[in-house]
Amino acid sequence: MTIGIIGAGSVGGTLGTGWAGKGHSVLFGVRDPSASSVKELLGRAGASAKAGSATDAAACDVVVLATPWDATQSAIQSAGDLKGKVLLDCTNPLLPDLSGMAIGTTTSGGEKVSEWAPGTRVVKVFNTTGFGNMANPIYGTDRNTMLYCGDDSSAKQTAAELAGDLGFDPVDAGPLTQARLLEPLALLWITLALKQGLGLNIAFKLMHR
Amino acid sequence: MTIGIIGAGSVGGTLGTGWAGKGHSVLFGVRDPSASSVKELLGRAGASAKAGSATDAAACDVVVLATPWDATQSAIQSAGDLKGKVLLDCTNPLLPDLSGMAIGTTTSGGEKVSEWAPGTRVVKVFNTTGFGNMANPIYGTDRNTMLYCGDDSSAKQTAAELAGDLGFDPVDAGPLTQARLLEPLALLWITLALKQGLGLNIAFKLMHR
Repeated sequence: MTIGIIGAGSVGGTLGTGWAGKGHSVLFGVRDPSASSVKELLGRAGASAKAGSATDAAACDVVVLATPWDATQSAIQSAGDLKGKVLLDCTNPLLPDLSGMAIGTTTSGGEKVSEWAPGTRVVKVFNTTGFGNMANPIYGTDRNTMLYCGDDSSAKQTAAELAGDLGFDPVDAGPLTQARLLEPLALLWITLALKQGLGLNIAFKLMHR
Repeated sequence: MTIGIIGAGSVGGTLGTGWAGKGHSVLFGVRDPSASSVKELLGRAGASAKAGSATDAAACDVVVLATPWDATQSAIQSAGDLKGKVLLDCTNPLLPDLSGMAIGTTTSGGEKVSEWAPGTRVVKVFNTTGFGNMANPIYGTDRNTMLYCGDDSSAKQTAAELAGDLGFDPVDAGPLTQARLLEPLALLWITLALKQGLGLNIAFKLMHR
């Protein structure tokens, strides 16, 4: 299987290096294949990797899109005909300052609740997992992570203690606007459990090393 | 600490039972405190729990909102004055058929990419974690989960194999519209790593039991 990677930054470079190490033929589609950064990358990736144009990458069996969001549309256009291709999209439509998503995610239930209950210290919490995990958040020797967010630190501390009381591993996810991220995570859990057939005994753990 | 829970369904009931078991005073704020389902809940929750009105729940030290989304605004209104309260919001603005979020999440980069590259078989993948984890997705005896979504099953199988090649545990998250959930998950990882100070050596694992 040949793999064409459009974008040779941290993500594209790491993926390509990993796959080349597994014996896949990797082609990095870049603006300047003779650039020193590309040569360095090819040195790390080894003999199974080479560099070419975005069009060369688009000719591979599998095409990987690993561009910054604002370069994505033009990268697709410069790749030429992609019809029928398996296109692995690794991009994320992030605002440059990471303050939110550039498209698609504009508000949250948590912010609505705060608006509907003015003057309260809202913490978004206990929304990202099912009640079975709330009854028992222990998975063998691991604990279900409970992410929470809000704008009042003492209210958040209360939420964290109450999560810990139930056996969760509480993790502060930031200000209340982060509910824009925790609520989609809830629907992700729900759809994995109910629509993808994984069942209710699944839970996210944030690992550290 | 007294805890008032607005909504005595699966989530509110489970949380309240858990906290009552830890010795907290719990009050379930319900429409009809003498309903048989409420009596049954109180039997499970034990002596530290009682039932009352939404206003009674709102008078507790901590107020927990555990209502279906479409009942949330009216529940807040019926609770009366909540100023200064710690309000733990466990709600999620889900569409009733779980096909998406009712507010706030309307499209995704993955869908845009599919629109910009017509005829391709797009898989959203390798977007939810950092390149350090792509280079090494192993955490002790655990593996970083790689969620992916798309509308073409063979393209998804390719994505899963390529994720497995790198050491990830690949998990099918459903159709391409699920990119609306995977992209916010990416920003959650990024903000936990960079803004909440947890650093880059963190990763999500989907646990099973």
